[in-house]
Amino acid sequence: MLEGGLAAATMEAIAARAGVSKATIYKWWPSRGAVALDGFLDRVQHSIAIPEGLSTVEALRFQVDELIRLFRDTEIGAIMRAVASQAVSDPDLARAVRERWLGPRRAVAADVIRQGIARGDLRPDLDSEAVMDQLYGPVYYRLIFGHGPLPPDLGATLVTQLLGGVAADQR
Amino acid sequence: MLEGGLAAATMEAIAARAGVSKATIYKWWPSRGAVALDGFLDRVQHSIAIPEGLSTVEALRFQVDELIRLFRDTEIGAIMRAVASQAVSDPDLARAVRERWLGPRRAVAADVIRQGIARGDLRPDLDSEAVMDQLYGPVYYRLIFGHGPLPPDLGATLVTQLLGGVAADQR
Repeated sequence: MLEGGLAAATMEAIAARAGVSKATIYKWWPSRGAVALDGFLDRVQHSIAIPEGLSTVEALRFQVDELIRLFRDTEIGAIMRAVASQAVSDPDLARAVRERWLGPRRAVAADVIRQGIARGDLRPDLDSEAVMDQLYGPVYYRLIFGHGPLPPDLGATLVTQLLGGVAADQR
Repeated sequence: MLEGGLAAATMEAIAARAGVSKATIYKWWPSRGAVALDGFLDRVQHSIAIPEGLSTVEALRFQVDELIRLFRDTEIGAIMRAVASQAVSDPDLARAVRERWLGPRRAVAADVIRQGIARGDLRPDLDSEAVMDQLYGPVYYRLIFGHGPLPPDLGATLVTQLLGGVAADQR
């Protein structure tokens, strides 16, 4: 899949590369997208935890920066593109992505936001789900459509603009 | 494609439904994704222009609200999901999406942002591309992964949070 894209990674090709029968692959994974998701999760397991002692801004930055770094500098970007592509037409895979990748990361981010509100750093009336989508959504959006790059300072820009606001009378 | 998803909309099926030969379809469109993109653009042509006389906030709201409405209430959402899915593995289609759909809309939004800065409504040091991604990215992100809904008030939330900021010391 990394060499030829998702289209090349048929279940036959995956079985051939693994040196097992196609039936064996199908025993464990229902589709090539499911194989891709497991490959993805296997590589990103350690990217969810946020170090202790960070400020609210630092903790939000940490997660966004890490996502951008993974997508830009590692094969994770290509794998996530393949997973997203197939998830659109595969409800089981889409649910697996939500439950196994987006959900756990978003739970950690929701904790950061809750703590930020409790500490008086963030507005108590914010929409937590929308905050996460305004920090991570731009990264996935660029990854999928390729209309913009994923530069190392993108995370800082996204966090600064969302926290401080872009209206002129702010700050 | 709307009935059976992108997987069902083979070039054979498209030709059969249109009552023409597959060669005729291939003469005009290189792939099913290209057919989907034309179907998409045919339906959304009128959604780019912003009415005259709106404030900066209203103009930004107008575009986001319109995108959310199209994705939620019309078949455009399903078509865009199919287009996005195939664009990931089809560089020609991805370029067509950027040049024919994202580009023109973003040019209009960039004008709104430039005018907003000139009027003193928006911070002159904002990152215009990132602003657009923080308004539209969340909508595509939810459309593709389905982790959140597209309620009618989402546009208001996205614009309010990004313009006013979610840090507690704002406003």
